[in-house]
This record gives sequence, structure tokens and C-alpha cells, in this order.
Amino acid sequence: MRATLMYAAGDVRVEDVPDPSIVEPTDAIIRITSACICGSDLWPYADLEPTETGRPMGHEAIGLVEDVGPDVRTVKPGDLVVMPFAFSDGTCAFCHEGLHTACVHGGFFDGLSTGAAQAEAVRVPLADGTLYALPVAEDDTLMPSLLTLSDVLGTGHHAAVVAGVKQGDSVAVVGDGAVGLCGVIAAKRLGAEQIIIMGRHQDRTDLARELGATDVVAERGDEAVQRVMELTGGSGVHGVLECVGTEHATETSVAIARPGGAVGRVGVPHYETIPLAQPMFFKNVKVGGGPAPVRAYIEELLPDILEGAIDPGRVFDHTVGLDGVPGGYRAMADRESIKVLVRP
Amino acid sequence: MRATLMYAAGDVRVEDVPDPSIVEPTDAIIRITSACICGSDLWPYADLEPTETGRPMGHEAIGLVEDVGPDVRTVKPGDLVVMPFAFSDGTCAFCHEGLHTACVHGGFFDGLSTGAAQAEAVRVPLADGTLYALPVAEDDTLMPSLLTLSDVLGTGHHAAVVAGVKQGDSVAVVGDGAVGLCGVIAAKRLGAEQIIIMGRHQDRTDLARELGATDVVAERGDEAVQRVMELTGGSGVHGVLECVGTEHATETSVAIARPGGAVGRVGVPHYETIPLAQPMFFKNVKVGGGPAPVRAYIEELLPDILEGAIDPGRVFDHTVGLDGVPGGYRAMADRESIKVLVRP
Repeated sequence: MRATLMYAAGDVRVEDVPDPSIVEPTDAIIRITSACICGSDLWPYADLEPTETGRPMGHEAIGLVEDVGPDVRTVKPGDLVVMPFAFSDGTCAFCHEGLHTACVHGGFFDGLSTGAAQAEAVRVPLADGTLYALPVAEDDTLMPSLLTLSDVLGTGHHAAVVAGVKQGDSVAVVGDGAVGLCGVIAAKRLGAEQIIIMGRHQDRTDLARELGATDVVAERGDEAVQRVMELTGGSGVHGVLECVGTEHATETSVAIARPGGAVGRVGVPHYETIPLAQPMFFKNVKVGGGPAPVRAYIEELLPDILEGAIDPGRVFDHTVGLDGVPGGYRAMADRESIKVLVRP
Repeated sequence: MRATLMYAAGDVRVEDVPDPSIVEPTDAIIRITSACICGSDLWPYADLEPTETGRPMGHEAIGLVEDVGPDVRTVKPGDLVVMPFAFSDGTCAFCHEGLHTACVHGGFFDGLSTGAAQAEAVRVPLADGTLYALPVAEDDTLMPSLLTLSDVLGTGHHAAVVAGVKQGDSVAVVGDGAVGLCGVIAAKRLGAEQIIIMGRHQDRTDLARELGATDVVAERGDEAVQRVMELTGGSGVHGVLECVGTEHATETSVAIARPGGAVGRVGVPHYETIPLAQPMFFKNVKVGGGPAPVRAYIEELLPDILEGAIDPGRVFDHTVGLDGVPGGYRAMADRESIKVLVRP
């Protein structure tokens, strides 16, 4: 089959690789119908050390179950399923608590040498705990929105949940990428009254407004903090959704949080410490977040997609076949595309 | 009257100063019957730059209302009141949310040049929102426990609340000072099943066991982390109460938190950044906390003291008159005393 491998920063290739096959009795093989390129894929695209074997890429997918191991009970060949970016057994203490990304037997597709999701097919470990069967057909027009259940919508939702967003709140979303845009959707969905999107790409902040943002702050650093204070009567926001992953974004997030507020971090952190430990303390601001347990959130978010109450598929502005994946990386890295949908 | 002034690190004096008087119509003057020395007073005792005027010390007290300004409605001369370590109007948005330490008109007694609580009397701003009238007489044997409502019990409780302690949890309390010991009481009160006290002073950890701690970890650094992991089946604890305020204690706190767990910081931070931002992220650990809104917690905690369900007054192991205050600082700094009660 054809699959995407990254050999070094900026070096993405689509190559012939062996078809995946059942290894563990709890595995499933899915034939991928929709996948995508993630903002987090841009980190290795910027800095991956050269690797001779190539790193299989892609961790978000919808696909048709092709084969299952003998112990798989909840999905069967022919099912159309969402594949969250992490696999999980669905039975351990952490899965029961809804934190599937801490599953004691789980892991991330990015760490699997056996294959990943920007490909024609993928082996999914712990299929029962990982995959979620969709109640629609493969050609459904909601497919882009449903695909966001595999990562970006659940991730934006996680940021909002950790930031404690509730009815009437003022919220800031730091970052105007696909996760930030989904954060806007999530904040609105949870009842936020004021949603400030912080980003410098006007096409994206325009889309954020359509998705529910009430204000745009294009400034950075101290000026951005000052703008948010002006927009919130001097107090700051109840909740901050940190959707970037840099120290600068985290510093801004703590600085704009209202006393008693919270920061939900979902940008993969490329920094070692959380800044402003003292202002954070004296304001009683909480900082939390991490890899989103998107598997746990599917049941809550899916009905809103099916009913058309939310339309997170709008974060996709380019669609490519597998051969278009290297160009898709370039387009996202150059900020020409928000998020690229891949139809293998 | 006699009052405590600190002139430099290690230089505490009790001197004659003018009696306090009503300045604002919302003030009250209280004649102090019980006060104490706080662990946080030891920070300036260690590093205060010399000051010619002296810094009034003390922010925890019980006293008799002696005089009130014309706008004071809820307390009257003769009332026995608890004075929380922060004053607050009780009416702003933050006070309504229970975060009195973010009151828009509030502040800390330590910042007032007009006087503080290790004295015969003190001026209390915003008396209606700040003071809490007690339903007991001044000679009640519960007085030491009631005095902890002014700071250490509410502060330990805040750490437990922020750490999300609930029925059946495993909890670690970092620090065996008076706040840590109150953290043990608070964690037990909220239903924690396993309470690990982390400290190196056996007299204190012995007392912690009597107050509800189930395990003692006297190790530090990596060894301490390893011990907590052994005690918790390898996962770490649900909640960590950080009751020290050093970077090292915060690093340990994040390291021993279970995936999905939380750290409640109440030690005044003497560090600039929160360490382990990446492990904290990948474990989905929350870090929060700050100056405890002890005023908000009095109504919840007072009944348990009155009924004898908790006995936080046990953190006091020395009692002095005002002239004994300088010696009390020395005893606490030398770890000869956990917490000194002052009867002016």
C-alpha cells in the first residue's frame, strides 16, 4: 500500500510499504477513507532529525474496518469508524475516568513503527477501546466534521473543559490554527458569552468570527495582554484555551487569565517550564491540560455534528489525495492552508 | 500600645506605637486576644532588607471589636471576631465567587503601614466583609483551633480544594509545617483514603499521623518521588497539597501527581516558573492555588471545630505574650516550634 513517511525536517515522501496486518488479537485493520495533516505534524516537519527508515505519519482518520483480531468484540468488518489519535483499552482505571490518553496499555500512533494514518490502511491496536463506529455512510457530507472527532475538535473541547468554560464566561483562544478554531466552537458550545480569538492570520480569525468568536486580538506580547484587559473590563478572561504550544503563548495565557480563572493547554509544549509562577499564584489561576482524551468526548460531541449544531469540518480548506500529502505539509507550514484533508 | 515590628532579617522588636484608630467609615478596631506567627513570616525573617520605620507584622488574629466606623453593619463593639489574613469588601464579583483574596477593594495586612496583628490592637479595613463573629466566648478552650480559621486551616483546605481531593483519593501533602498539617486535616475531612505527609521533622510527621496521615515520606528529590510511586501502585497521587513554596517542592509535587491529578499550591512561591511543564502536560496534571480565600471557608470549617470533629489548634506548640514574639520567630525559624500562639 501507499503510506506517508517523514525522513527529515521538510522531507515527506509517499512510498510503497507492506500492507498492515493483524499482530495482536485485539487489533483491527482499517482501510482509511479520510485522514488529515495535524498542526502537531508541523513540529517534526520543522525539526525532525534525519532517519533512514522514515517515520510513519498521521494520527487522525476515519476508515472502514477491513479485518479484526479474534478478541475484538465491538467493531466488525464493514463498520465505518473514527480513529482517535491515541489508542486505549477502554477498561483501565484511567479510561474509566475518561482520561484515555493515560491508558495503561495505550499509546500514540505517532510512536508506532508499524504504520500510521496518512496511508491507505492502518493497524489499530486495542480496537475495542479505541475505535468508535459511526452511524452514517462513508459518503456522508458530514465526513469532514466527523473526522475532527479524531483530534482537533476533541482537543479544542478539552482545552475548554480544562479551562472550566461555562455559561456566560469570557474566554480567550490563543492560536488561530485548526485546534484554536475548534476551541472557539467548543467555547461557544459550552456557553461562553465573549470569545476572544488571538491570532494574526486574518483569513483564520475571519473564520473564527463565523464560528462564534466575538473579538479578535491580532497584537502579540504585552500589547495583546493590554487589549484583552481592555476587552474584559480590566479583569482578564475566565478561561484561556492555549492552542499553540510555545512558552510565549503560555506566558500570554497566564497573563490574560482573570483571578480564579484557568488555562487549558492543548498545544504540545515546546518549552520546559510554565512562566509567571508568581502572578499565577497571586491570581489563583489554574493551568492544566494535555493530550485530549478525544475518545471520551466523541459521545458528547457527535450528536451536535449529526444535528448540524456545529460544523468543525470548516477547518479543512484543502483536500488532497495521498500523492498530495507532501504539498499539503508545505501548504500548512507556509500558513497557506489551515488544515489539509487527505482522501487516500 | 505594644506592637511587633521587623526591622531587617532576624531583627524583630516589640515597641510602643500609637493606638490604631478608625480611618475609613468601614473600619473596625479590634483588641487582639489571640494572634500567631505564620510560616510565611519566616520569609522576611530570612531576607527582609533593612527598613528604618520597621514593618508591622502579623496577619492572623482573634479579637474583641472595640470600635467601628459609622458604615459598619455586621459587627459591633464587644463581638469576638476572626480576622482573616486578607481583608475584603464581601460584595465585589470575586467575593461573590468566593475568591475574597482577589477582592477589588481588598488587600493583605502585611501590606498595611498602619499596623498588623502581632500587637495589642489592629485596624481592620472593610470590617463587614472581613470579620466573622464567633458564637463563643473569649475564654473558650477551642480558641487555638478557631484561630487557625484566620489562615492555616483555610489555607490547607484551599490546597485540598484546588487539588480536587474527594472521597477515596490518595493525597500527598508536601511540607510538614502548620499549613501542611492543616492540609492533612483538610484532606482527611474531604474523604482522602491515603494521605502521605512528606517532611523530615519526626515530631511533625508524628503529629501528622495523629491528624490523619497514613504514610510518611522523609526522603527528598528523586527518592521521595520513588517512595510515593511505591506507595501508590506506581501511579502517583490524585491530589498534591504543596505547602512549602520552593521550586524544589513544586517539582516534587508535579512529579508525584497521578495522570489527571492536580497540585494545589499554597506555599508562597519563591520561584519564577513551574518546572516540568512537559511531564505535567503529558500527564494532564493541573497546577493551581494561591492565597486562600479563608474568609469564604469559615462557614464550612467552623462547625467541624465547634463539634470537635477536627482539632487544628494542635499545630500550636508554643504560647507567648507579646514580649515573647521575637523568641517565637527564632523558635520557628530554628524548627524548634511548629507554630507560636501569641496572647497579647
